[in-house]
Amino acid sequence: MNGLIMDYPLTTNTILNYAKSAFPDKKLISHLPNGTRHEYTYGALERRCCQLANALKNKLGITKGDMIGTFAWNHYQHVELYYGIPGIGAICHTINIRLSSQQTEFIINHSEDKVIFVDATLVPLLEKIAPKLETVEKYIIINAHDGFTTSLLNTIHYEKLIEDQLDTIQWPKLNENDACGMCYTSGTTGMPKGVLYSHRSTYLHAMTILSPNAGNYSNDDIILLIVPQFHVMAWGFPYMCLLTGSDMVMPSLHLQPEAIIRILELEKVNKANGVPSIWMGVYEELKKNPPKKKLALEEYLVGGSALTASLVENFEKDFGIKGVQAWGMTETSPLGTASRLQKKHKDLTLKEQLKIRAKQGIEFPGIEMRVVGDNGQIAPRDGRTMGELQVKGAWVIKSYFKTNNRDNFTDDGWFRTGDVSTIDADGYMEITDRTKDLIKSGGEWISSVALESALMAHPNIKEAAVIAVPDKKWAERPLATIVLTDINKPISKEELKKYLSKDFANYQIPDYYVTISQVPKTSVGKFDKKEIRKLYAEGKLKQ
Amino acid sequence: MNGLIMDYPLTTNTILNYAKSAFPDKKLISHLPNGTRHEYTYGALERRCCQLANALKNKLGITKGDMIGTFAWNHYQHVELYYGIPGIGAICHTINIRLSSQQTEFIINHSEDKVIFVDATLVPLLEKIAPKLETVEKYIIINAHDGFTTSLLNTIHYEKLIEDQLDTIQWPKLNENDACGMCYTSGTTGMPKGVLYSHRSTYLHAMTILSPNAGNYSNDDIILLIVPQFHVMAWGFPYMCLLTGSDMVMPSLHLQPEAIIRILELEKVNKANGVPSIWMGVYEELKKNPPKKKLALEEYLVGGSALTASLVENFEKDFGIKGVQAWGMTETSPLGTASRLQKKHKDLTLKEQLKIRAKQGIEFPGIEMRVVGDNGQIAPRDGRTMGELQVKGAWVIKSYFKTNNRDNFTDDGWFRTGDVSTIDADGYMEITDRTKDLIKSGGEWISSVALESALMAHPNIKEAAVIAVPDKKWAERPLATIVLTDINKPISKEELKKYLSKDFANYQIPDYYVTISQVPKTSVGKFDKKEIRKLYAEGKLKQ
Repeated sequence: MNGLIMDYPLTTNTILNYAKSAFPDKKLISHLPNGTRHEYTYGALERRCCQLANALKNKLGITKGDMIGTFAWNHYQHVELYYGIPGIGAICHTINIRLSSQQTEFIINHSEDKVIFVDATLVPLLEKIAPKLETVEKYIIINAHDGFTTSLLNTIHYEKLIEDQLDTIQWPKLNENDACGMCYTSGTTGMPKGVLYSHRSTYLHAMTILSPNAGNYSNDDIILLIVPQFHVMAWGFPYMCLLTGSDMVMPSLHLQPEAIIRILELEKVNKANGVPSIWMGVYEELKKNPPKKKLALEEYLVGGSALTASLVENFEKDFGIKGVQAWGMTETSPLGTASRLQKKHKDLTLKEQLKIRAKQGIEFPGIEMRVVGDNGQIAPRDGRTMGELQVKGAWVIKSYFKTNNRDNFTDDGWFRTGDVSTIDADGYMEITDRTKDLIKSGGEWISSVALESALMAHPNIKEAAVIAVPDKKWAERPLATIVLTDINKPISKEELKKYLSKDFANYQIPDYYVTISQVPKTSVGKFDKKEIRKLYAEGKLKQ
Repeated sequence: MNGLIMDYPLTTNTILNYAKSAFPDKKLISHLPNGTRHEYTYGALERRCCQLANALKNKLGITKGDMIGTFAWNHYQHVELYYGIPGIGAICHTINIRLSSQQTEFIINHSEDKVIFVDATLVPLLEKIAPKLETVEKYIIINAHDGFTTSLLNTIHYEKLIEDQLDTIQWPKLNENDACGMCYTSGTTGMPKGVLYSHRSTYLHAMTILSPNAGNYSNDDIILLIVPQFHVMAWGFPYMCLLTGSDMVMPSLHLQPEAIIRILELEKVNKANGVPSIWMGVYEELKKNPPKKKLALEEYLVGGSALTASLVENFEKDFGIKGVQAWGMTETSPLGTASRLQKKHKDLTLKEQLKIRAKQGIEFPGIEMRVVGDNGQIAPRDGRTMGELQVKGAWVIKSYFKTNNRDNFTDDGWFRTGDVSTIDADGYMEITDRTKDLIKSGGEWISSVALESALMAHPNIKEAAVIAVPDKKWAERPLATIVLTDINKPISKEELKKYLSKDFANYQIPDYYVTISQVPKTSVGKFDKKEIRKLYAEGKLKQ
């Protein structure tokens, strides 16, 4: 028997209309690429989204299912694109501006973008590849300064595009399973793969991450979105903020530590998101130049890679600002878990608490996870047994865009994350490695992540990346590359081995240590181990 | 174009499985009818739900779409029914134990309950009507004491039913739009009407009410569910607590103020729900017998009727416990709005803040609301213009069970609440009356709720209910019935008129005041104005 409840599709339009009705005076603040500050309300945002949607239909001939690219920083126009494009049934494809020209070209041709909205400061990146883009008919330039010129053909300025359009619209009826957004993985192996989100998955993800066990956001918050809108929809925050009535602050290209601190101070931001390297930079800058007045910032949500326990501890001790570890992937919309302490942890020592908080945490409702061992068996939740992390849920992909390749999916329908992890008896998941980064030495697994964490807790080590190198006797052995905080204070191999022996078994401790000036990073700021392995293969990593 | 996201139906089974995985050690604590305390974990709950589901299928032959009645207090067995019944596709029909025999008989026959799960203490209520129940094949007795006997035919004890069943199950694949629960309205006019919830509406409602702008619940909370499970699924809390990992405390029939306070103390409860009359009673008892140690209780969520500003103020001032006003109806699952202050309200005076907090508040995402005036126009959001409150959303009904009557629905698909309200510029909705309780005097509307609130703020008035009485000149005039706090301190008509003249225009002030010993109440504790009008018509309300 059916329930007798109204048919109410979960779409981005329902989110936009909700904010218009419940939080018309809440603010979207943008620090634009040219350094000016822009502010308007969610009421104004809604009206401009209508104008944009009307322009897409009337001037650009966009219809349902069309793919529209964005190549832009975080700012109000990009938020308008997040709603205006899917609002009429088209797909908002956010393109990562940090990929190589070759990858960018591949992505745009593969997704068949019809129009690209591009920030004026980023136009040079597209000019280089424009002749090879097969499907793009028009470029819409955002934030163009006076006298802006470009070699791109068929351009129009964003404000020109929307200025003469009505600021109301009758949104079309959409099916909540229609696609609303697309993002490509950053592809550390091979070409990026496309991930197509639905209205429903976007709504449910946003509705879940605001909950107290997850991000804990309300209409009392002012949130700085440091995660770029071209990275997995800025973790869904541009949708979430309209559901909560949180004020949203956008930094565009002002992502250097000093710039972020200036915005935190100016806008009285109390919550923020971002990858660990951003927060490491902010912490160091705060240590160098302590703020005159305590920051309003209470908490930052971290994903992308693991927070080190030392950063969490120091940030909290020195500035009273709390780091919350979360985990997710492009394929999981992205957020799937977060790690917060519970009442029963109140009496633990600080060190024990930090150990729990450094885990990736408990899954959100709507997400299921399991760890599957080499033997194909589901691993016990004992906090020790490692295996591949597999997930399913209401915002996890069932396939990649335009491919029938099922390598990343199990026969019983779970997504294979490629992460190696454990789950403990309390349900906290901890990533111990990427499957391809695991070190198997003499038949035993060694976690490169655990070694890196421990090394980075050393007072004179800023960064550490561990890879497997071939070994005749043990098949593989770990090699640690380290970046010193102070290059005048080198650390001997013996010292490091002794330091690690507190926490690791002998066989787990690397035999090789190489000091480097910086760890190579991917376009999303993760350690690029493929690059480190290449350096090793080329004989460039000598002790 | 479709999104490429997994098909993941939102069902009560996903909630149960989530709690099993994420919060296996969280607790469900029951204070049973016989006074004993029972406690187990969500892990144990899940296993017993499997046993129950197996028993329903194997022993009672229950199949998809079957209607199963519950006639029970709040306790763990009732929570098991909330999951075990819908888990196999049957419908959990919670029957209000406080209705008249005639209404109960009507409801059970109308819904065609096949089996009824009944608390031993409530069996006498069913024995009276059992011969007239046309569809009930079996009664399952919960919490029966030794030597329990009954005239009901075909009975079996709950523990007997499930004890030999497997504690694992392969739940069937359900469509999220399948019905999962049913509740009848309390029906102040005519016979109760059936409201059929879907798995999807139940999930979305539960997921929304835990958000910080609404109830704000997390795995740090211990929540006392005072709202009976036979009232609109206890406001969705038995589902919500498993999504948040909050501990759940169930009082069964221990609903007297002293009993509630004892449970609050014993279980260190920090949040709770309930109707205003419960909280009024708890407050008075706390005043009489102040607790030795400050209660852990931080906040209580109130719905059903309006909290008076004076109760909110005194509870907070005297005991540091905060009341949060919410609003909803059986037809809206029930929760649709809540009233919390925002940052911009921080600098208001206490009185101004209380005025906002006494409103019904801002709608949750997933709910839309509008006020429609006599002229059929949507009223402006000015906090003044009154009209009928209409709602739609993801957990609002589109029709009643087994009827084609469309009186409660507009042509464009909104549900007509029958409440008269305003919405202010900040989006806060305030109920000013029920449409049928509004007083229209000389062409002007007078809000009986506003008068009642003001009267109840008088130090010597405990309760006040205002009805319209016929008047030759003005068509209608308000008549106030009042219950004194101290019967030895009567208040004169002149005194009351003067008292009200601070806040009301002359034409709004009642001419008639009648002191009564108590205000007649409906089965859900609301003022029964139908009964008061009847007393008036019978000449029993004399000044």
